[in-house]
Amino acid sequence: MSVDRLSLNTATTKHWTLAEAVAGCVAAGIGGIGLWRDRVAEAGLGEAARLVREAGLTVTSLCRGGFFAEPGAVRDNRRAVDEAAALGTDTLVLVCGGLPAGSRDLPAARRLVADGIAALGPYAEAKGVRLAIEPLHPMFCADRAVVSTLGQAIDLAEAAGHGTGVVVDTYHVWWDPELERQIGRAGAAGLIHAFQVCDWLLPLPADALLGRGHVGDGHIDIPRIARLVADAGYDGWTEVEIFNQEIWDTPGEQTLRTLVERHRTHLTEQAAP
Amino acid sequence: MSVDRLSLNTATTKHWTLAEAVAGCVAAGIGGIGLWRDRVAEAGLGEAARLVREAGLTVTSLCRGGFFAEPGAVRDNRRAVDEAAALGTDTLVLVCGGLPAGSRDLPAARRLVADGIAALGPYAEAKGVRLAIEPLHPMFCADRAVVSTLGQAIDLAEAAGHGTGVVVDTYHVWWDPELERQIGRAGAAGLIHAFQVCDWLLPLPADALLGRGHVGDGHIDIPRIARLVADAGYDGWTEVEIFNQEIWDTPGEQTLRTLVERHRTHLTEQAAP
Repeated sequence: MSVDRLSLNTATTKHWTLAEAVAGCVAAGIGGIGLWRDRVAEAGLGEAARLVREAGLTVTSLCRGGFFAEPGAVRDNRRAVDEAAALGTDTLVLVCGGLPAGSRDLPAARRLVADGIAALGPYAEAKGVRLAIEPLHPMFCADRAVVSTLGQAIDLAEAAGHGTGVVVDTYHVWWDPELERQIGRAGAAGLIHAFQVCDWLLPLPADALLGRGHVGDGHIDIPRIARLVADAGYDGWTEVEIFNQEIWDTPGEQTLRTLVERHRTHLTEQAAP
Repeated sequence: MSVDRLSLNTATTKHWTLAEAVAGCVAAGIGGIGLWRDRVAEAGLGEAARLVREAGLTVTSLCRGGFFAEPGAVRDNRRAVDEAAALGTDTLVLVCGGLPAGSRDLPAARRLVADGIAALGPYAEAKGVRLAIEPLHPMFCADRAVVSTLGQAIDLAEAAGHGTGVVVDTYHVWWDPELERQIGRAGAAGLIHAFQVCDWLLPLPADALLGRGHVGDGHIDIPRIARLVADAGYDGWTEVEIFNQEIWDTPGEQTLRTLVERHRTHLTEQAAP
């Protein structure tokens, strides 16, 4: 029996190959999978597509395009769109990149991102892929994403059009005083393309990227955010994406059992049909 | 000759006693000082007041009240107001505290902070002290301050009245897509009670509190934010508050020379009368 609308983002089981992650999901009754491009490349795009299709999994997203200030971004982002289409997912997550090297001009960096998204939109739409802009926690503004709030991501999505929307990831947005209003706004406009969950652990680890925990282990009221998203009309998958060294060092099967248990304990209301 | 409108926040020279900090400011030509309560208590309130007064320094702020969810917060915050008045500063900085222990209810934590500020306002006003709500970077939302954006701090200040305003600290607000608009809003309403500066360094250190650097050493366009604040009508002091182990391990005299040099290099326009 599959767990309603639960999806494994493969970053959570970092050491698994794509084939192992697919087999793990099938064994655990997890019907969705969010793929990272490095694991797809390793398996080969055609083989990756075959693996998920034959396993009957829904590919809930491909992670990721974006980093618009990098050299070759235009070509790489089009390739990411092509890969999403080949994998049968309608959602390409965009992590937009931080300040260009040596620059402190945040408004300019944000204009560059807006231009990059706008230019990619028509290409994605033509391939049947929706761009999903992910606001990252403001602590990543300098180095990973100058898109820092859900409101800003919605503004960008609305400006870009062509099916562009947003990702709501609890880790990145939970602190936002505007959260309830912006989730409602995104939902009303049909812009919530993905919902990702993980928890906020303290103390932050030396590598601030890795301070994420299983649902229920940290400080975020994840059920509340899941309800806000559901109330806003989102009825898609809940993708669990956790960057955490300890979890990465845990056998994948055990991690997936925890995912299923936490989903049932904390997100049943949201997960219920 | 004193450096226009430059103030040393004593957290920057953590290992100096209050007397050492006062002497250091005088020697360096720094005319303002932002005091922390622990150093004041160590010197004794009366002696601290005498030291700064006889040195001719302006006490630009007292840090800090707040932490409204802590036991004894009401009494401690009134004491902080009394200390500010005794020290001759009109500004008490409020760091409002994170989630109460064991709680994930962020909206409730924010209501508690709003209530705490509102209750303290009349007491402060009667003593001639302005409360200055400091929004902290969202990475401190769980453990140090549920006030996470300048817009939220302005909302709280406006609701509280009685002279309550906000602190603009570059480290905490630089990433905010709403920054320009909110600084303008705060300035128009006369709510900018303090301006603090330090820079955003990468990588974040193991203790995320300590990732702050001298103006010009990191990723923030601090001159731009200083211009925004000045354009919004702020003509007060620029207080340098840096939490950084390496700077704490540097002789205070050297740190103050760096403060003066960076102020002249990066903030002359803002510092000019």
